[in-house]
Amino acid sequence: MKKQIDLNSDLGESFGQWQMGNDEAILSVVSSANVACGFHAGSPEGILKTLKAAKENGVAVGAHVGYPDLVGFGRRNMDIASSELIADVIYQIGALKGLATAAGTDVLYVKPHGALYNTIAHDKRQAIAVIDAIKSIDNHLILVALAGSPLIGWAQDSGLQVVAEAFADRAYNSDGTLVSRKLAGSVLYDPKIVAERMLQLVQEGGVVSIDGKFTPIDAGSICVHGDSPGALEMAQQVRSILEKQGIEIYGFAHKGERE
Amino acid sequence: MKKQIDLNSDLGESFGQWQMGNDEAILSVVSSANVACGFHAGSPEGILKTLKAAKENGVAVGAHVGYPDLVGFGRRNMDIASSELIADVIYQIGALKGLATAAGTDVLYVKPHGALYNTIAHDKRQAIAVIDAIKSIDNHLILVALAGSPLIGWAQDSGLQVVAEAFADRAYNSDGTLVSRKLAGSVLYDPKIVAERMLQLVQEGGVVSIDGKFTPIDAGSICVHGDSPGALEMAQQVRSILEKQGIEIYGFAHKGERE
Amino acid sequence: MKKQIDLNSDLGESFGQWQMGNDEAILSVVSSANVACGFHAGSPEGILKTLKAAKENGVAVGAHVGYPDLVGFGRRNMDIASSELIADVIYQIGALKGLATAAGTDVLYVKPHGALYNTIAHDKRQAIAVIDAIKSIDNHLILVALAGSPLIGWAQDSGLQVVAEAFADRAYNSDGTLVSRKLAGSVLYDPKIVAERMLQLVQEGGVVSIDGKFTPIDAGSICVHGDSPGALEMAQQVRSILEKQGIEIYGFAHKGERE
Amino acid sequence: MKKQIDLNSDLGESFGQWQMGNDEAILSVVSSANVACGFHAGSPEGILKTLKAAKENGVAVGAHVGYPDLVGFGRRNMDIASSELIADVIYQIGALKGLATAAGTDVLYVKPHGALYNTIAHDKRQAIAVIDAIKSIDNHLILVALAGSPLIGWAQDSGLQVVAEAFADRAYNSDGTLVSRKLAGSVLYDPKIVAERMLQLVQEGGVVSIDGKFTPIDAGSICVHGDSPGALEMAQQVRSILEKQGIEIYGFAHKGERE
Repeated sequence: MKKQIDLNSDLGESFGQWQMGNDEAILSVVSSANVACGFHAGSPEGILKTLKAAKENGVAVGAHVGYPDLVGFGRRNMDIASSELIADVIYQIGALKGLATAAGTDVLYVKPHGALYNTIAHDKRQAIAVIDAIKSIDNHLILVALAGSPLIGWAQDSGLQVVAEAFADRAYNSDGTLVSRKLAGSVLYDPKIVAERMLQLVQEGGVVSIDGKFTPIDAGSICVHGDSPGALEMAQQVRSILEKQGIEIYGFAHKGERE
Repeated sequence: MKKQIDLNSDLGESFGQWQMGNDEAILSVVSSANVACGFHAGSPEGILKTLKAAKENGVAVGAHVGYPDLVGFGRRNMDIASSELIADVIYQIGALKGLATAAGTDVLYVKPHGALYNTIAHDKRQAIAVIDAIKSIDNHLILVALAGSPLIGWAQDSGLQVVAEAFADRAYNSDGTLVSRKLAGSVLYDPKIVAERMLQLVQEGGVVSIDGKFTPIDAGSICVHGDSPGALEMAQQVRSILEKQGIEIYGFAHKGERE
Repeated sequence: MKKQIDLNSDLGESFGQWQMGNDEAILSVVSSANVACGFHAGSPEGILKTLKAAKENGVAVGAHVGYPDLVGFGRRNMDIASSELIADVIYQIGALKGLATAAGTDVLYVKPHGALYNTIAHDKRQAIAVIDAIKSIDNHLILVALAGSPLIGWAQDSGLQVVAEAFADRAYNSDGTLVSRKLAGSVLYDPKIVAERMLQLVQEGGVVSIDGKFTPIDAGSICVHGDSPGALEMAQQVRSILEKQGIEIYGFAHKGERE
Repeated sequence: MKKQIDLNSDLGESFGQWQMGNDEAILSVVSSANVACGFHAGSPEGILKTLKAAKENGVAVGAHVGYPDLVGFGRRNMDIASSELIADVIYQIGALKGLATAAGTDVLYVKPHGALYNTIAHDKRQAIAVIDAIKSIDNHLILVALAGSPLIGWAQDSGLQVVAEAFADRAYNSDGTLVSRKLAGSVLYDPKIVAERMLQLVQEGGVVSIDGKFTPIDAGSICVHGDSPGALEMAQQVRSILEKQGIEIYGFAHKGERE
C-alpha cells in the first residue's frame, strides 16, 4: 500500500487576454503542474506568472508539450513528420526551461497534451519522436504516460524514467483502458465518488471498472482538473480524502525524491 | 591594432516550407551565427538543422530574438509592455538553448533583431526589459549591441558583458551613427570597397564617414549578410581581405576566449 | 432632441477554446455588434456562431478590424506600412462578409479595434489606409469613429459615411476628448450614473466633463461592454433608462435607415 | 475532341518576407490561378498583389483553401471537426473575395490545397463540410476536384458545379488514380514527355498508365506548377504544344463560359 501519491493538473493555459483555469487555486491542491509551452496554449508572460506561482507553492513543474495548433487547443490529431515533432517538442521544453529558470524553478518532467498525449500512447512512430526529443534536451526528465499504454514500455526501453498516471474523473474498462469519451458513463461528475475511487486506487492499486470488476491500475500520479469551479471542488475532495487517510500528496519529480 | 575580429550573420530564418538565406554557405564565412528563435522567423525543425550546421562549422551561436511578428518579420515597431517583452525574450532564448543542446552546441550570446534591435539601441524602457530578460535566464550571455548606442552603457551598468558591432555594408555619419536608410548612400554595394572599409575598421579602429572624415568605431564584431548571392560574395571578400592581412576571424563568444 | 440612438458592443472575441464575453446576453441589449475578424480576436467557428446569433436578434453587424496581433489582443501600437494595413483591413472585412453571408446577414459597417482605433483617430497616414481599404471593398460600409476626432473629417472628405460614437463608461474633458485612462476618474463604474449620462447625451447632445462643464458630444452611437457581469448590467441599465424615456434603440446601419 | 482546356497553378503562396514561386511568370502560362488564402500560405499584401497581376493577365481566380497550418504548409492531415472546417473554408473564401474585389476581379472557383485536397477526395465527412461551406457563401463557385475521385459525385449531388483536374507531372494507374508519390516513377520530370502526355489527354481523353495501358481521364483542367525554373519550363512546354495543335487555353470559370 502506497503512502504517497502525486496529483497533477494542467496549468498556464491562458493566452494573452484570454483566461483559462484558476492556476492560483489549483496550485494549492496539486503537487505537479503540467505547464503549457505556447504551442497549444500559453503565452510567455502568463506562463512565467504561473511558473512563479508554482515555485511559491512548492509544486513541481512539467512541460505540457502539444501539437502546434493554438486554435484547436492541441486537441486535433495531426499527421506530423517525426523530424518536425522532435524539433517542436525540444523547442517547447527549452522555452519552458528558460522561463522556469527565470522563475527560480526547473522543469522536471514532460507530459504531452491532448491529441499528442493520446496519439503517442499507442502510435510508436510519434512516441519515439517524443522520447528522442526529451532525451536530446535532458535525459533526466521524467515522462508522464497513460497507465497501461504501450508508451510506458517504449520509454523505459529507451532509458527514460516514466510515471504512469490515472485520470480521477474517468471510467475504466476492465482491461485497464479508459472508457471512450463517446460512450455514456465515461466521465464521472460526483466529487465524492471520484474521491473514493482515487482512495481505492492508492490503497488497493486499482478501481472498479465500468462493468463492475476490480481493475488494477498501476499509477504514480493522478490527473485532476482546475478549469471550472466543479473541477476544482473535485480536485480538492480528492486531496482531502487522501490526506485524511494518511496519504501524502507528493510530487514524483521533486528532486529530493529523485536523488 | 587588433589581431582578431568576429564576423556575425543572421541565420535560421527559413520558416516551414519557406526558405530564406543560404545558411550552409554563410557558415563557412562567419564566426558567429545569430539564429532566429521563432518569433520573427525560424521554425523548430529548420532552426535545429541550422544549429547542427553551426556546430559542424565551429561557429558560435547567439539568440536572434525579435518581436512576436512573423508576418512583419519583426521589422515593425511594436509598443509592447515591459512584462511582455521580458517573457518573450526569455521564451525565445530558452527555446534556442533547448535546440542548441540537442544540436550539441550552446547559446553564447544574444543579438536582438530588426525593430527590437533598433528600438533598444535608444529606448531605455525596452532596453532594460531585454537586459533583465537575459540576466534572468543566463547572466553569462553576451549582448551584441549597436556600436556607439546608449544600450552599451545600460547593459554594462547592469553587469552584462557587451560586444559592439559595426555593419559592413552601411555608411556612417561622422558622429559614429549609421546613416539613415532613407538617405542616399546609406547602403554600400561594392564588395571591394566594403572589404577595404572593414580592414580599416579593424586596423585603424574606424571608417571614413559619409562626409569624408575618419570616424572611430569601437566594434568587436562585424555584421555581414548571406541572404543573397551578392551579400554572400561581399561577406566572403570581407573575410578574405582580413585574413590576407593576418587578422583572425574568431567568435567573440567562444568559450576559450571567455575564460 | 433625438428619438433614436444606437448601442454598439464588441462581440465574437472568443478564440478557439478560449471564451470571452457573453455574446448571447449582450445581443439582447445592443443594436449593433462589432464582430472580431480573426486578427486580434475571433476564430471562424466562433465568429460564425456570433453572426448567427446577431441575425436572430436583429442586430446589425460591423467588422471589428484590428492589427495582426493575437497575443496582444490588438492593443499594442504597431508601425505597419500603409500597403500592409490596407490589405489586412480588406482581408478581415472580406472574411467577415463571407461568414455573414453564411449566417444570413451582412456586414454594414466597420469599427476599428483597440490600438488601431486609437491610432487612426489622429494618425492621418494609417487613417487613410483604413479608409482606402474600406472603399476598395465596399463603399457603402459606414465607418464608426471616435466623436470629435480628425478621422471623421478625413473619412467624410473621402466620401465614406461616418457615425461618431461616445463611450458610456468614460469621462470626457471639456474639449470633448476622452480623459486618458492613465488619469483618475477616467473610467466610470456606477451603472446608474452612466445610464443617466447617456440619457443626457441623447436628450441634450452632451455630457458633463470631468471638470464639471456641459460638453457637447455629437454621437450617433454609444459603445457599451458585455465582457463582464458588471459591464453587462451597466449596458442593460443604459438601454433601460433610454427606453423608459421613449428613446428607441436602433442600429444606425440597418438598411431600412440607410435607404 | 476538345478544342479548349484550362491550365491551373497555385499562386499567392509567399508569406510576409518569404517569397515562394514566380507568380508573374506563371500568370503568362495558366488560365486559372489557385490563390492561397492565408491559412496554409499567403499574407494579405502579397495575395492582393497576386490578384492584381491575375486581373492584368486575364487569369481566372480560385480560392486555394487549406487547413490552418502555416508552418506545415497545409500538407499535414488534420482531424478537424466539420463545424470548424466549414467556418475555416468560408472565412478563407470570404477573405479572398474581399481582396479580389479590391483588385478588380472575382473569385470564381475553389480548389482545396494539399492535405485537405487529398483528404476530401475520399473522406466524405470532410468533403461534405467543404461542399456545405462553398454553398453557404456562394453556390455559383465551381469546385475543382481530383479526376476520378468520389468527391466529384458528392459535389454534383449537392448541386455544385465541378471541374475535374489532371496533374501534368504525375503518373497514373490504369484505374485512373494517381500513382502514389511513395512509388518510383510517380512524378514525371521531362518537360517534353509531360507536354505530349497532356496533348494526348486533351485530344484522346486519357493518358498511358504506368503499366502501359491507355487510361481514360476525364479532366477539364490540368494542374501545372511554377514554383521552380524547371516547373515553369514544363508548364510553358505544355501550353506551347497544346496551342500549336490548335487547342485554346481557356479558364473554365471565366464568366463568358459560364453563362
